[in-house]
Amino acid sequence: MEKKVIIQDKFWLRYRELIRKEMIPYQWNVLNDSIDIKIEKERNDNTLLLEKSHAIMNFKIAAGREQGHHYGWIFQDSDVYKWLEAVAYSLKEKMDENLKDLADEVVDLIAEAQEDDGYLSTYFTIDAPERKYRCLNESHELYCAGHFMEAAVAYYDAVKNQKVLDTACCLADCIDRNFGREEGKIHGYDGHEEVEIGLLRLYEATGDKRYLQLSCYFLEERGKDPYFLSRQKAEEQRPPLIEGMDQWPLEYYQVHKPALEQTTAEGHAVRLVYLCTAMAQVARETKNEKMLEACRKLWRNIVDKRMYITGGIGSTVHGEAFTTDYDLPDDTMYCETCASIGLVFFAHQMLKNETYGEYADVMERALYNTVLAGMALDGKHFFYVNPLEVVPEKVKKDPGKSHVKPVRPQWLGCACCPPNLARLLASVDEYVYIQKENTILANLFMNCESSFQMPKGECTIMQKTNYPWDGNVEFIIGSTAEEPMTFAVRIPGWTDNYMIKMNGRTLSLEVKNGYVFFEKAFAADHIQIEFEMKPKRWYANPHVSNENGKTALSRGPLIYCMEGADNGDCLHLLELKEDEEIQYSYEENLLGGVGTLHTCGMKLDLGHSDMPLYLSRHFETEKVKKKIKWVPYYSWANRGENEMSVWIREEKVPRGKPAGMPNKMKEVF
Amino acid sequence: MEKKVIIQDKFWLRYRELIRKEMIPYQWNVLNDSIDIKIEKERNDNTLLLEKSHAIMNFKIAAGREQGHHYGWIFQDSDVYKWLEAVAYSLKEKMDENLKDLADEVVDLIAEAQEDDGYLSTYFTIDAPERKYRCLNESHELYCAGHFMEAAVAYYDAVKNQKVLDTACCLADCIDRNFGREEGKIHGYDGHEEVEIGLLRLYEATGDKRYLQLSCYFLEERGKDPYFLSRQKAEEQRPPLIEGMDQWPLEYYQVHKPALEQTTAEGHAVRLVYLCTAMAQVARETKNEKMLEACRKLWRNIVDKRMYITGGIGSTVHGEAFTTDYDLPDDTMYCETCASIGLVFFAHQMLKNETYGEYADVMERALYNTVLAGMALDGKHFFYVNPLEVVPEKVKKDPGKSHVKPVRPQWLGCACCPPNLARLLASVDEYVYIQKENTILANLFMNCESSFQMPKGECTIMQKTNYPWDGNVEFIIGSTAEEPMTFAVRIPGWTDNYMIKMNGRTLSLEVKNGYVFFEKAFAADHIQIEFEMKPKRWYANPHVSNENGKTALSRGPLIYCMEGADNGDCLHLLELKEDEEIQYSYEENLLGGVGTLHTCGMKLDLGHSDMPLYLSRHFETEKVKKKIKWVPYYSWANRGENEMSVWIREEKVPRGKPAGMPNKMKEVF
Repeated sequence: MEKKVIIQDKFWLRYRELIRKEMIPYQWNVLNDSIDIKIEKERNDNTLLLEKSHAIMNFKIAAGREQGHHYGWIFQDSDVYKWLEAVAYSLKEKMDENLKDLADEVVDLIAEAQEDDGYLSTYFTIDAPERKYRCLNESHELYCAGHFMEAAVAYYDAVKNQKVLDTACCLADCIDRNFGREEGKIHGYDGHEEVEIGLLRLYEATGDKRYLQLSCYFLEERGKDPYFLSRQKAEEQRPPLIEGMDQWPLEYYQVHKPALEQTTAEGHAVRLVYLCTAMAQVARETKNEKMLEACRKLWRNIVDKRMYITGGIGSTVHGEAFTTDYDLPDDTMYCETCASIGLVFFAHQMLKNETYGEYADVMERALYNTVLAGMALDGKHFFYVNPLEVVPEKVKKDPGKSHVKPVRPQWLGCACCPPNLARLLASVDEYVYIQKENTILANLFMNCESSFQMPKGECTIMQKTNYPWDGNVEFIIGSTAEEPMTFAVRIPGWTDNYMIKMNGRTLSLEVKNGYVFFEKAFAADHIQIEFEMKPKRWYANPHVSNENGKTALSRGPLIYCMEGADNGDCLHLLELKEDEEIQYSYEENLLGGVGTLHTCGMKLDLGHSDMPLYLSRHFETEKVKKKIKWVPYYSWANRGENEMSVWIREEKVPRGKPAGMPNKMKEVF
Repeated sequence: MEKKVIIQDKFWLRYRELIRKEMIPYQWNVLNDSIDIKIEKERNDNTLLLEKSHAIMNFKIAAGREQGHHYGWIFQDSDVYKWLEAVAYSLKEKMDENLKDLADEVVDLIAEAQEDDGYLSTYFTIDAPERKYRCLNESHELYCAGHFMEAAVAYYDAVKNQKVLDTACCLADCIDRNFGREEGKIHGYDGHEEVEIGLLRLYEATGDKRYLQLSCYFLEERGKDPYFLSRQKAEEQRPPLIEGMDQWPLEYYQVHKPALEQTTAEGHAVRLVYLCTAMAQVARETKNEKMLEACRKLWRNIVDKRMYITGGIGSTVHGEAFTTDYDLPDDTMYCETCASIGLVFFAHQMLKNETYGEYADVMERALYNTVLAGMALDGKHFFYVNPLEVVPEKVKKDPGKSHVKPVRPQWLGCACCPPNLARLLASVDEYVYIQKENTILANLFMNCESSFQMPKGECTIMQKTNYPWDGNVEFIIGSTAEEPMTFAVRIPGWTDNYMIKMNGRTLSLEVKNGYVFFEKAFAADHIQIEFEMKPKRWYANPHVSNENGKTALSRGPLIYCMEGADNGDCLHLLELKEDEEIQYSYEENLLGGVGTLHTCGMKLDLGHSDMPLYLSRHFETEKVKKKIKWVPYYSWANRGENEMSVWIREEKVPRGKPAGMPNKMKEVF
């Protein structure tokens, strides 16, 4: 046992219980088509299959237990794998024999659906065996395989089910026999990255270097021959598996140039961050500096130029893709939940490579905002797409916004996000600490009890906090070793100030790469850190043209938003004074318990509704004082359909008057 | 001869010569596939047919002169009809025997392609005779018929070709036999309005009331049974004629409720304004007050809530449609050239109904801005879609903006706009004056010599002006009648001031409904009006959320824009002070001769390019003085691919300082 983190945190336990009690049983019912729900189109596309999930039935048919055809997306299998992975983490946290029995049965079913040579993909086994590995731009065969490997390792780790690991190895071996540099093998890769990650987990679990090498092969091969996928598709001369897939440019698949030479985040956002996640780990495992440098460049491009303030990525629904630098529209964006999950993975791997607080900052930003926003508070409704601004009427009347939902659907035709969310939230304990030899980095803040096998002896850490509502974090650290070790705590990028005490004594420690470092032979030492957690305003780089003159609010790791439920319609008529103070309060009974922000702003009063559309003078609008309430972005759309906006226009303070001066309007509070 | 207007205007003669010398021969070559051009997709849609026009060949095949199949859009015939209509106006202006011979041959060809019973639609005649009038949601059969009727009347009017009028009547009679309230007829209408307009022109030309009644029937029938089109389609049980047409809601076709009960502009923008155009005329011809009231309501909704400042309409590419009130995005809009042409038609008909200057103001706004922008200065490149903001890099990287072109294509797969432009510009003389019994309204301003048959005697009007560059307009009016008549001149909505002289003497006349009225027995009287034509700023209603804090510039009827060619990249970094003066100059050698505006604004200087994406304080950007040059919107994109923006951020003047005060920065001029 390398490390063990037991979460005891109110904020996160609520989520983990939701996963155990609601999401896992709910998703099981969905996968078995045993629940009557409304499956919604993720966007306006008549080719989407929406009648049912059929995911378990696909396996039963492939296993020969049932007769019939495959139904659903070609990558429907991955919904089952991600569910199994979430189950694994959940069982690891808290054993549930009934659930384990169910999962064991699923493992048996998957093993039965596997062909003798290890091949596994229900669509091809059932309906198109002659097309196996022959249409990789669309087939998602290796993508699903990767998800199965991840699930298998997690499930083996949780309950020591040998069969699942053997099935995964057998699949990986099949892939290894079919792909590679050697003659007779396919010199190519999957259209959707993911197997590279799965193989790495299998390598970690088994120590078999072939899996590392195969993962590395896929990464190095990717984009070397940009036309591999399109040529293979053309050679096959068969109808498409996914309508319209032929319209995407090379960038969609990240094959426009060798992966290691790519410097800007292009194409399908989930694919890109999955690629980066694998590259970041392979770079570490194989000490490949060139690959690490490629990761750094892609990271910089995302974080400096292509990421929403909520940690969302992907600016357009078309190809679910990145567009160009600073192109971050608020109402037509994609910001897929899975993409932010992938960004968490990428950040986590980079943080393992380099102790650099920005990686953890972004990981936290994505996790606490876009990732959590992907799920309703009931654990049974999900967003695929996470807008920063919604006006329901505009969404409904413009099919170009058909991907933007004002409220979370019960399920989606393409159901990649819900089980992806489940597996990340069920394994959030993995992201709290990173151990690097004799050093432990504390990256996320939540109540938990942890133990680590250090080079010498064992280290235990008790973390206590009321994060994300409070910036106080305490650590009680003990170690069985008498020699010093290093404990590093991230100082979040969002704080302007912090105070550190050790065993009651205030320390003045320098921040280095976003962390403060404690080097000591710990023995029940008490470290107390207080991050200043004032509400803050944020401004976007002026190149983000749609945010010019606007501000967004945050407190701690949370980005806030305004909703119609609190503020009425026409959020676009609201503005905030540059120097208006922001109040914070915790509301136990709102949205499962949230900290809310309160500002005194102004609302343009248009008087009567029939004012002209254009005037050759400023509209004579009265500005009336208006209290504006802000809720955490992750908690929006839990009170029915309403308007929402993250950004608000800011009224500048006239020059000469120092910013931050008290303002008359504060009196109304 | 009711009226005759001979244009002698430099600004408009350039266009009319372009039509005669460039557009008509060019479009003839395109329709005959005898020119090597690049036909571009109007949007990202793989079903578009782009190899050739084939429009004339379709007629030859239908006529039995050639063998083969129909190619192109199902409404490809209308390209030929609109070409013929433009030829008619051009010949009326200036006879050209060769062109007349060519057009006569086209008329012969059309007549040959017509079936014995009068039916005319090359697609159905050639490839699907069994589907005639059976899939009206897609077929465009009556749409094309309407365009032929318009062309036929115009061509008959120009050269007295009896055959064309007979062919059109024969077609109208065929439609009359097939559609109507009587048993055995189809109780329905075309998916795309237009035949209603064509029938009205045929009624005007022939005096046959059946055509007026049939037009009226289509209007009254429309939407009474909202499911007529979808039911007919379902009953036919045949594959679609246009891929994806089944996705559109009832609003797309304006059939969600009876046309006379519609109060908001919904669906496909061109269809809606064609519908309104016909309703406005039928209301007048049949004295139908309810229909007129419906027109007024739809007009108000468009003009008060759904029209761009350029006179563009249609906020989304999806369905080429209106969306909702105040939803007017600048970079994803549609603003189809044809839609603004239709808005000119609608406005013109309403002005005939009611002497109300706003109709002429909107007609002028659409004509001088979006309509003219639809064509390059060379007359050989065309916009389908007219954006208000273009950043070429963003357009290229987001398939959601595939309909937005940074430069005008040579031709478009769906070529409705170029010949529509040609026929409007070739007949712009029709829009200058409107005669209502003993009154003449002067609506548009251009040099022209006109004569009118008045109830008593003949009236001649000579108009002299350097419009749109100068606000002086002179009229010399004579009349053979000795009794008084009324001459009314529109006082444009954009002017704040005007001065009127008659025969050298200053008059003080009240503006009534946007016009000043002169009642007199005219005898070589000289009326001189000077509209104050200062550059102006415009502001959008605060409900147009994307224009908050922004301003747009105009001078006279022209809306202006900034282009990269004059101002460099990153137009979003420019801003204008609230009180900065706007200079005007005329540049003979720029863009065919244009008046340009000049402002001294500011540009945010971001210093180095690697500033972070988000900051918790204002970005420390220097504002550097920057001369900003503006060109008329209609003239943009004639200097290669570059950025363009109509709206600019405006920096407010600190309070206490009166607006309009001289500003230091002016010194740089």
